[in-house]
Amino acid sequence: MRAIVFDGSLRYTADYPEPHRPSGEALIKPHLVGICNTDLEITRGYMNFHGVLGHEFVGTVVDCDNPQWRGRRVVGEINAACRRCVTCLRGDESHCPYRTTLGIDRRDGAMADLFVLPEACLHEVPATVSDEAAVFTEPLAAALEIVEQSHIRPSERVAVVGDGKLGAMIVQVLRLTGCALTLVGRHPERWELYQRQGVTCTTSTDVPAAHFDVVIDCTGNPSGLATARRLVRPRGRLVLKSTFAAETQLNLSMLVVDEVQLIGSRCGPFAPALRLLERGLIETSALISARYPLDAGLQAFRAAPGQLKVLLSV
Amino acid sequence: MRAIVFDGSLRYTADYPEPHRPSGEALIKPHLVGICNTDLEITRGYMNFHGVLGHEFVGTVVDCDNPQWRGRRVVGEINAACRRCVTCLRGDESHCPYRTTLGIDRRDGAMADLFVLPEACLHEVPATVSDEAAVFTEPLAAALEIVEQSHIRPSERVAVVGDGKLGAMIVQVLRLTGCALTLVGRHPERWELYQRQGVTCTTSTDVPAAHFDVVIDCTGNPSGLATARRLVRPRGRLVLKSTFAAETQLNLSMLVVDEVQLIGSRCGPFAPALRLLERGLIETSALISARYPLDAGLQAFRAAPGQLKVLLSV
Repeated sequence: MRAIVFDGSLRYTADYPEPHRPSGEALIKPHLVGICNTDLEITRGYMNFHGVLGHEFVGTVVDCDNPQWRGRRVVGEINAACRRCVTCLRGDESHCPYRTTLGIDRRDGAMADLFVLPEACLHEVPATVSDEAAVFTEPLAAALEIVEQSHIRPSERVAVVGDGKLGAMIVQVLRLTGCALTLVGRHPERWELYQRQGVTCTTSTDVPAAHFDVVIDCTGNPSGLATARRLVRPRGRLVLKSTFAAETQLNLSMLVVDEVQLIGSRCGPFAPALRLLERGLIETSALISARYPLDAGLQAFRAAPGQLKVLLSV
Repeated sequence: MRAIVFDGSLRYTADYPEPHRPSGEALIKPHLVGICNTDLEITRGYMNFHGVLGHEFVGTVVDCDNPQWRGRRVVGEINAACRRCVTCLRGDESHCPYRTTLGIDRRDGAMADLFVLPEACLHEVPATVSDEAAVFTEPLAAALEIVEQSHIRPSERVAVVGDGKLGAMIVQVLRLTGCALTLVGRHPERWELYQRQGVTCTTSTDVPAAHFDVVIDCTGNPSGLATARRLVRPRGRLVLKSTFAAETQLNLSMLVVDEVQLIGSRCGPFAPALRLLERGLIETSALISARYPLDAGLQAFRAAPGQLKVLLSV
């Protein structure tokens, strides 16, 4: 079958072996797969992943044990947990130490004609949510993880640092809380959507230091983290949404002196993400920069840096 | 007057100028002053402080505007805030950007015959609390800041990494919550007190990774922080109580992946600290390693590293 594979270098192949479907897992034919910053980081060595890339998908279940899922249009949580260990039993399946992760960690991803994922990871897409919207479920769930972890009060001042792919989801989730929301970015050409949504958009040089109760870093680079750190007030919260291939330096003593709370934040809940999409509260079509067929996947990866969402059609 | 001064090097002097008492401040004669790790860090360059050292004290008010305080036995919060800015008005006086800090930042400290501190910082010591106990109020308040910032549940597994001066306070505060408490340290000769108090004591090599819901680092060194990071479970909380003169490296990507919450924690509330001392819930006398007269302050500073609490009698 066709697949986009990373094995030290990124390549397209037309004869990748079709996946074996283990019991309890579904065989899925993807319709659309998004390229995420994590995919780009993987091509720079992040997670030492080798295999088929792709974890943001919408597709159709082709085969599975439970007949309920067959033929359904689905999205899927990317962490395949054991569901038996103490971590899983306390409800932290996405942190299962035995998990594999779709297209990220020891599990082939969705940029192929077919892939497998446990049935327990699947969520059916409501009929009114298009493929082009549903493919944003995974990053939207990651944005919702912020409000799952931390109470964002309607009266708070919140800054999102980073106007990239993930920032687009985070800004749209946080504006729903009613908080005073500022997007700090470097791409004014992208701001029209957010400004229409009532979000203040600015460049980092315009923003006073220590001004925000909550700051989210989703820049994916160390200088963005430094900006985010500068913006948070003493006793404020700094949410880290970026994973870097490199280690990052942060002055931990000043974190202690200012009693800042650092909150690492990763994958989030899919059900509320689908509810927000169904309710039409999240704009997605304006975020699609380009769409490539799977065969042109390498071209898509070359185009993706500096773009908003680039999609692959399978 | 006599004073222990740091001005690039640490020295004792018998002719430091007596402090001028500004309006609203109290002139205090200290009885006892504790040597804290922050004092030792200052002698290594932390905060670039030059002046009289000392911020853990118990003393008597000699002169002040408000006659209510005159002659009272007091302890004092170390942050002298403006009490007018937005930070102060929202209740975060200890984070006032215009604050000076006793013996730490642009304000002469308590290791002298006399010093000044705003009346608003003072707390009267209950008659039943001895000087030798009251001198622990400041580090005990810093320990209470942990439970002020974060809800420690009685059912949680908590590890304190560091069996030094601050660890002694933190362990004693956290055991009161009923949590399952482990002290990870390097000084088994200090553990008898904590073991008697129902705390499990161990060396870091004995403890399984990712085992604790909450981990507090109060080691004051980067290797202690690395141990603490190793012990905290995914979605757990890592409380930072150490200030270093050096920057520290931490893998922030793994913090994101594990969704660990990092909580910087500094000065805490004095009133509950005095209540715990008054209720006899905190053991302090066993923590006093040595006591020196002010004139022998340099000798005390040389003896302090590797000791529990070293006190100066003024």
